[in-house]
Amino acid sequence: MKKILVLGAGLVGRPIALDLAQSGAYEVHVADINKVRLSRLEKEGITTINMNIRDKEQLHAVLPFYNLVVNAVPGFMGFEVLQNCIEAGKEVVDIAFYPEDPLQLDALAKEQKVRVICDMGVAPGMSNLLTGYAAHQLDKVNAVKIYVGGLPKVRKQPWEYKAVFSPTDVLEEYTRPARVVENGKIVVKEPLTEIEVLNFEATGNLEAFNSDGLRSLMFTIKADSMVEKTLRYPGYADKIKLLAQSGFFSKEKLTFSGVSVSPFEMTSRLLFNQWKLMPGEADLTVMRIVVEGKKEDERIRYSYDLYDEYSPATGIHSMARTTGYSAAMAVRLLLEDRYRTQGITVPEYLGKEEAIVKYMLDGLADRGVVYRQKREPVETVR
Amino acid sequence: MKKILVLGAGLVGRPIALDLAQSGAYEVHVADINKVRLSRLEKEGITTINMNIRDKEQLHAVLPFYNLVVNAVPGFMGFEVLQNCIEAGKEVVDIAFYPEDPLQLDALAKEQKVRVICDMGVAPGMSNLLTGYAAHQLDKVNAVKIYVGGLPKVRKQPWEYKAVFSPTDVLEEYTRPARVVENGKIVVKEPLTEIEVLNFEATGNLEAFNSDGLRSLMFTIKADSMVEKTLRYPGYADKIKLLAQSGFFSKEKLTFSGVSVSPFEMTSRLLFNQWKLMPGEADLTVMRIVVEGKKEDERIRYSYDLYDEYSPATGIHSMARTTGYSAAMAVRLLLEDRYRTQGITVPEYLGKEEAIVKYMLDGLADRGVVYRQKREPVETVR
Repeated sequence: MKKILVLGAGLVGRPIALDLAQSGAYEVHVADINKVRLSRLEKEGITTINMNIRDKEQLHAVLPFYNLVVNAVPGFMGFEVLQNCIEAGKEVVDIAFYPEDPLQLDALAKEQKVRVICDMGVAPGMSNLLTGYAAHQLDKVNAVKIYVGGLPKVRKQPWEYKAVFSPTDVLEEYTRPARVVENGKIVVKEPLTEIEVLNFEATGNLEAFNSDGLRSLMFTIKADSMVEKTLRYPGYADKIKLLAQSGFFSKEKLTFSGVSVSPFEMTSRLLFNQWKLMPGEADLTVMRIVVEGKKEDERIRYSYDLYDEYSPATGIHSMARTTGYSAAMAVRLLLEDRYRTQGITVPEYLGKEEAIVKYMLDGLADRGVVYRQKREPVETVR
Repeated sequence: MKKILVLGAGLVGRPIALDLAQSGAYEVHVADINKVRLSRLEKEGITTINMNIRDKEQLHAVLPFYNLVVNAVPGFMGFEVLQNCIEAGKEVVDIAFYPEDPLQLDALAKEQKVRVICDMGVAPGMSNLLTGYAAHQLDKVNAVKIYVGGLPKVRKQPWEYKAVFSPTDVLEEYTRPARVVENGKIVVKEPLTEIEVLNFEATGNLEAFNSDGLRSLMFTIKADSMVEKTLRYPGYADKIKLLAQSGFFSKEKLTFSGVSVSPFEMTSRLLFNQWKLMPGEADLTVMRIVVEGKKEDERIRYSYDLYDEYSPATGIHSMARTTGYSAAMAVRLLLEDRYRTQGITVPEYLGKEEAIVKYMLDGLADRGVVYRQKREPVETVR
């Protein structure tokens, strides 16, 4: 039986481990530095390893026992851990979402003759895969639009927002300049700008604003325009901008009777309790991907709509389901040898193979994560 | 020539001193602990005293040389300074706006045989005087509504707000429960609630929300309903509530790697620079007072509208003009013996005498601070 090591027992690592273990096809172990997180998984029948994943020696001591590694550690340490796994000659499915560019490790992965699928969550992840698929069907890509958001099901003022991620990581998203593609070139925009209001059947109106989520797509897909926007309940961006413009996100320390604290630290602390998705608290994931282009003489639009909710049966949040099950399906792709390319693979590469796209979408649908697909001609006004 | 001592050379103390000195009728001196503030007044021909006003010995040493004192110190020390002046047997016009109730000092002032006019600014101040006048004309008062706000003339997002007061004092206003009168009884409301939108000729729409500004009126005027609301550009209350609900006004200290700072301290610091009305920056004051009641068988409405702006000629902000000139006129009332009642006088008492109301309004109009008055029957739907 093939053995899988999941690095990180957090909100996303847990559903990955449970999904792969419950199939009975694999032996799954989970490593984490935090014993509390591990004990929950142990009660669910998963073997755990209490270790410091960042310690290269400890990591290299355990890796030889596994066929494949899932990298589900926090972003700040994700790239370093990925590199250490590849150096140890391990194949990896990676959802650590670090700021570094994983394609930097392509030469190393090829040299080690290992397959590594990076950014394999929902967005980045399935958003790349489906964009890659649609782009590959077209002769020329005009426009790519990705709208995605994780939200609490119950809207509570003033923020109407909750996340499985730390507020610090979320706030970083709102301060980082947002890169988009316009006229075939990368353009840097202010985050939280160019607000659109979109209607979704399940949630009603949501607002969408610029965020820096295109990642590898900016470099791997040739399109006239490409944008990723974050979805929130209407009014959210203005509230965040109010804090931003008033200096509440500043990382420069201020001194109060001799002690120094930055507004960013204070703000993260205050929002932590308000934004934390609690166990059992229902959330939802909304994603809409629209890819328009030309096939021969026809203008075609591909669109994908995802709506998913918290599962009361498993106690797994939607943001963890949509991210984790995508990664779990990618693990199967590799272990069943359905994808054979060595080196770093970003999900849009997987999208070039129709059989893989079908395999991923079917597997996700089996887990209740359903993408509604449409292919239609674009009506043009002459 | 009668001698006046102005305690406090701040934004309101300065126009009081200049107004009284420029008439040529009085000798005016100004005391402050801050030499920078005093040096500006010296250049304008005012004699100054650099002293610690809170030091009772120092204060009692200088007071004997003056006929009257204007108490224009910050609120936190205002009540104590007033008490010390009365103990020294001095007559006082007071605009220090401390949290304490000045009527507590009534017995002391009567014992010392001195006249003391308290809360003698624009609101509290003229708002009380005009409400008192209208109430005195009526047999029964049904409703009193006071709307007042000081605003920057140039609206700048996100706050569209500037003040001559410290952000700490302003934030305190937004956190203090707001007392209003309903059905003849004092009721406590959440601050920033019951938002109305009112239209003003000079500024367009403004929003009005509950604030704790009635002070002595709650106890001295008998009315079915009475409310004071603060005026701001629309959207402001929601922004403040966002901060309040997120914990940014909490005074409980939070600890960051061993050092403790309260969100309130951090928020005051961040807003200080954004809310500070700079020298030369134009501001405006808007006030609307509506008093409705019955006179014999008729229902009557008295209303007063004030609109005032920064004076480029004198460099005096509108918030300082409307506050300071009201106090300066009250000083004349006392020194010209137009009002003779000893003890603590709140401005609604002055409103009982039509001649005094006329004297105050004429004096303010001479200084460009014009109240538009109306008396009209109330149309009732039968």
